[in-house]
Amino acid sequence: MVLKRVSQMLFLGLMLSVVFSVSSQAQGKKSEPDFSTYYYQRKSLFDVLPDRPGEIVFLGNSITDGGEWAELFGNSKIVNRGISGDITPGVLYRLGEVTRAKPSKVFLMIGVNDLARGVSPDSVVTNIRTIITNIRRDSPSTQIYLQSVLPVNPAFTIFKNHVNKTGQIREVNARLKKLGSEKQVMYIDLFSSFSTADGYLNPDYSNDGLHLTGKGYLLWKSIIEKFL
Amino acid sequence: MVLKRVSQMLFLGLMLSVVFSVSSQAQGKKSEPDFSTYYYQRKSLFDVLPDRPGEIVFLGNSITDGGEWAELFGNSKIVNRGISGDITPGVLYRLGEVTRAKPSKVFLMIGVNDLARGVSPDSVVTNIRTIITNIRRDSPSTQIYLQSVLPVNPAFTIFKNHVNKTGQIREVNARLKKLGSEKQVMYIDLFSSFSTADGYLNPDYSNDGLHLTGKGYLLWKSIIEKFL
Repeated sequence: MVLKRVSQMLFLGLMLSVVFSVSSQAQGKKSEPDFSTYYYQRKSLFDVLPDRPGEIVFLGNSITDGGEWAELFGNSKIVNRGISGDITPGVLYRLGEVTRAKPSKVFLMIGVNDLARGVSPDSVVTNIRTIITNIRRDSPSTQIYLQSVLPVNPAFTIFKNHVNKTGQIREVNARLKKLGSEKQVMYIDLFSSFSTADGYLNPDYSNDGLHLTGKGYLLWKSIIEKFL
Repeated sequence: MVLKRVSQMLFLGLMLSVVFSVSSQAQGKKSEPDFSTYYYQRKSLFDVLPDRPGEIVFLGNSITDGGEWAELFGNSKIVNRGISGDITPGVLYRLGEVTRAKPSKVFLMIGVNDLARGVSPDSVVTNIRTIITNIRRDSPSTQIYLQSVLPVNPAFTIFKNHVNKTGQIREVNARLKKLGSEKQVMYIDLFSSFSTADGYLNPDYSNDGLHLTGKGYLLWKSIIEKFL
């Protein structure tokens, strides 16, 4: 009877240790958040690129990713840290790579993919507040430029979860403007210049209601070049 | 009777002119080939970026697009002319933008998306031959580097139409090597360095069997930096 109980306890202990070990392995595999394969391709590239003094970082999602910023401004200190599809938690997760270089400036635009996934304007702005706090903490001399989320245009149908978010984008931008005053960070209103009277992304600057054509990048440049 | 025939002819003429006009309009709208919206975003950006003397062009699809080449090599003359999803006809269609700058060098890698769509190795190489011919014609002093198509890895399943093309990729590369000798263009074998003994993309350099992580871009750099 005692022997049986001992053997039961041994068996239980063995099973527990097996379960624990499998669970640890599963956690080991799951140690990275579930961002896209493209996210990790870009992040792993950013991680191995050399940091240079005085970097100017363009940080954001596909709209930043699609730009050729150093060429556009004729300034080789500018680096592209855009990742197509990125969201505010994605920026937070890779922010160490950005601040490690102690960049002179960061131009941030993020949030439309969060909204497309149904995240609230409040959560988006909360995460952007944390992004600013963390940049300030880890690289205090970096000048931060907080760019508005661009308008979208529901007349286009490819990105239907994005282009119906005009109301939420307006709300995020109103809160970002406040956040800028509160944190003494320069807020840059791109929304007004890119939108029609209805508040939609002007089709002169986009062929899909979300992303920019060359003419759009030229407009962006004309608005922010005084800050470079 | 005569009146009826005249009215019939008038009606016929009217219908023909309507049909012709509608068809012209349709053709007018269809005047650009049916590449992706992303293709036209990138192309329209490339078209407005300033040309600079001595440009070194990295020309290709997503694998080129995903790189930050100027940063990787610490050389601000390098420009990224990659378009995710691009195929050989896409490169041909936008080649004027590349040659207009009279670049000092062009590093070309293209073809895996053509193969994924079922295009034959023969057609891919025929189009690459035309790309070389057109660069030579429009910018004779440009040094062309013809890079092999990279291996793929069928153990990954995201890009299933790409990663099962090992045989066709080998065939394209064998033909590109010949084409290089024939045209006196430097052929660069990246395939061997990136592949396992089985000829598959080494998972040390990729997280999806098709695209590269940072470690992959570092390997690429180590192979070609002597040509920059």
